[in-house]
Amino acid sequence: MSISPHTGTYPQPPVLIIGTGLLGASVGLCLRTQGRDVYLVDVSPTVEAIAEDIGAGISVHKRAQERGLESSELAQLLPEAPQLVVVAAPPDVVAHIVIEQLQQWPDATVIDLASVKAPIAQTVLASSTEAHRYVGAHPMAGRERSGPVAARAELFTSRPFVICPHQDSSEESIRIAHHLGAELGSIVTTMDAQEHDRAVARISHVPQVMSSLLASRLQETPLHALSLAGQGLRDTVRIAGSEPTLWTQILAANAEPVRETLHEIRQELDRIICSLENPQMQGARLSIAQMIRDGNAGVARIPGKHGGAPSAFSQIVVLVEDTPGTIAQLLQEIGELGVNIEDLRLEHSPGQPVGMVELSVNPNEHEKLVEDLTNAGWKVVR
Amino acid sequence: MSISPHTGTYPQPPVLIIGTGLLGASVGLCLRTQGRDVYLVDVSPTVEAIAEDIGAGISVHKRAQERGLESSELAQLLPEAPQLVVVAAPPDVVAHIVIEQLQQWPDATVIDLASVKAPIAQTVLASSTEAHRYVGAHPMAGRERSGPVAARAELFTSRPFVICPHQDSSEESIRIAHHLGAELGSIVTTMDAQEHDRAVARISHVPQVMSSLLASRLQETPLHALSLAGQGLRDTVRIAGSEPTLWTQILAANAEPVRETLHEIRQELDRIICSLENPQMQGARLSIAQMIRDGNAGVARIPGKHGGAPSAFSQIVVLVEDTPGTIAQLLQEIGELGVNIEDLRLEHSPGQPVGMVELSVNPNEHEKLVEDLTNAGWKVVR
Repeated sequence: MSISPHTGTYPQPPVLIIGTGLLGASVGLCLRTQGRDVYLVDVSPTVEAIAEDIGAGISVHKRAQERGLESSELAQLLPEAPQLVVVAAPPDVVAHIVIEQLQQWPDATVIDLASVKAPIAQTVLASSTEAHRYVGAHPMAGRERSGPVAARAELFTSRPFVICPHQDSSEESIRIAHHLGAELGSIVTTMDAQEHDRAVARISHVPQVMSSLLASRLQETPLHALSLAGQGLRDTVRIAGSEPTLWTQILAANAEPVRETLHEIRQELDRIICSLENPQMQGARLSIAQMIRDGNAGVARIPGKHGGAPSAFSQIVVLVEDTPGTIAQLLQEIGELGVNIEDLRLEHSPGQPVGMVELSVNPNEHEKLVEDLTNAGWKVVR
Repeated sequence: MSISPHTGTYPQPPVLIIGTGLLGASVGLCLRTQGRDVYLVDVSPTVEAIAEDIGAGISVHKRAQERGLESSELAQLLPEAPQLVVVAAPPDVVAHIVIEQLQQWPDATVIDLASVKAPIAQTVLASSTEAHRYVGAHPMAGRERSGPVAARAELFTSRPFVICPHQDSSEESIRIAHHLGAELGSIVTTMDAQEHDRAVARISHVPQVMSSLLASRLQETPLHALSLAGQGLRDTVRIAGSEPTLWTQILAANAEPVRETLHEIRQELDRIICSLENPQMQGARLSIAQMIRDGNAGVARIPGKHGGAPSAFSQIVVLVEDTPGTIAQLLQEIGELGVNIEDLRLEHSPGQPVGMVELSVNPNEHEKLVEDLTNAGWKVVR
């Protein structure tokens, strides 16, 4: 049973998922909805059992135990050889597992989902003669929570699924990786592994470090000072709630690109600290202004919703009572006007049950919407 | 016309607002809705005229010009002496204007709204014999946009209004500051000026620096790498869009507390850079894990919505089509179930018109809501 490149049809061979935490169990859930046979293996029997319980596939060890099979060899526990092995294990053991699985199943394509790609490819290439059957991939999806309980079949829907083939990846294995990304409902793109690692350092790993460093300073901040905090602080430190063990592995695996960017940031930080030592000094204020302007320029480059070019949506702010149904009613009326909401933000109001809803809309719908909502009795502020 | 402390009634004397940008014009708009006479002055005739046009009060210079009055003395341009002067000018000229206004109006209370308080109080105390009529205040409200066009009467609604009396502030002037905060619809609190400045360094000024430093690194990040960016990056750099000139003044004015915290962050950053130089080194991974854990601990201390204790809301994720009215319909159905939404987040999906709505709800309403929504045909993920 193999992929047929000529007909373009893909048979649905069994998939083995190694590592059934958030990512692995979500892959299982999604493939199960498409009728694929999925086998689950995890180093933790509990995690493997939970993944089966939520419907992500068949727990290999549980099934073996029921049948009285005793073997440390996966090949003897599975009823059939998988054609695809998805390795969704923690970053620091991924390369080892990929090498092991390539050896275990001589016909299978092995795809890992770790968020750092170059070091794994290097290790696999250096240690396995079967590296042509290995392709790295990175589904850009995650949650602040982890484990199979947090899994969901739609985790990857409309998210980027970055495939990083190495120099020896076979065309068939690359095609299978593309097919997996499509099955997960993702937007599949291809990128060089090194380029990918530099990209995620900037857009994900360094932001994590900065958010954590900032949030750690709140440990000694008095609670009555924190009670003054607005949405700006909340947004900036949101990802600081992420899981320490996983992030330690990610940062250690992508140490070089992360360190490079952090080094650049430290140089800027030194310059700002120096400017703040004597803000009246010649050039000090210019240096501070330049930092804020550089930030303006950087943030303006992030693409807008749906991958389009950065666009300036119009903001409309509506004052609402914080009771069930009020926001629903507002959005329903906007929907009836045929206006699409590009983004929505609730502003929290410490101490009082009044909220502000900031809606981003297409600029050429702005004026009319403000007028219509005001006429309908909403407290609208442009 | 003066405040009567004995009866507790407050006559509505005219208010003079100096500086009619976002804050000043918003104060004017709000006081006008309560029938107060408001006079507006700005160093820019255009800004002053716009503030009048949006209904924030009477432009003093425009009115004087119409009457053919020519004087640089405000006292000769106003028809009556104000009892309250609100100084909403840029931070680096506030102290000077406060001193000038105390001299100009011998019976008026002068309140400034700058976001840094101790240096202004120090300058006023050192330079004016009338400092007892001065009180500093800081309305914790702002927007990423500036100028009177962005002003709104509800800008301060339910936001903290921090009053920082100095050692010589009179009881009457403190009372008038409280009354102003109440008129603006704010939650009024009192704080020592130094303590306030340390607090805003941590919860506002240092987050601004960190967000700007991070966003500035995106200037050299390739666009195809930025297209992989998720909500984490977007949240972390949102405030990096702030206005350079204003923020240069704020950071320069609060240089000492900001520098202290940045110095602590630099020490941590050095430690992380060192750990990333050789992640296999003894203690390196522990050091990285400790940073993430410290961030976890810090972010957990931020109070929840409505000023309550940090609370663990349950999250429900619903997959929706990105068409007008879909989110409205979802929220309407939730409203009909009587469930209050504590927070709402739209997750953007690059490239495809499918969105995920993450709803935060009271944990004991979670199970039932998931069941009810699923039964109603929504794609719900726990």
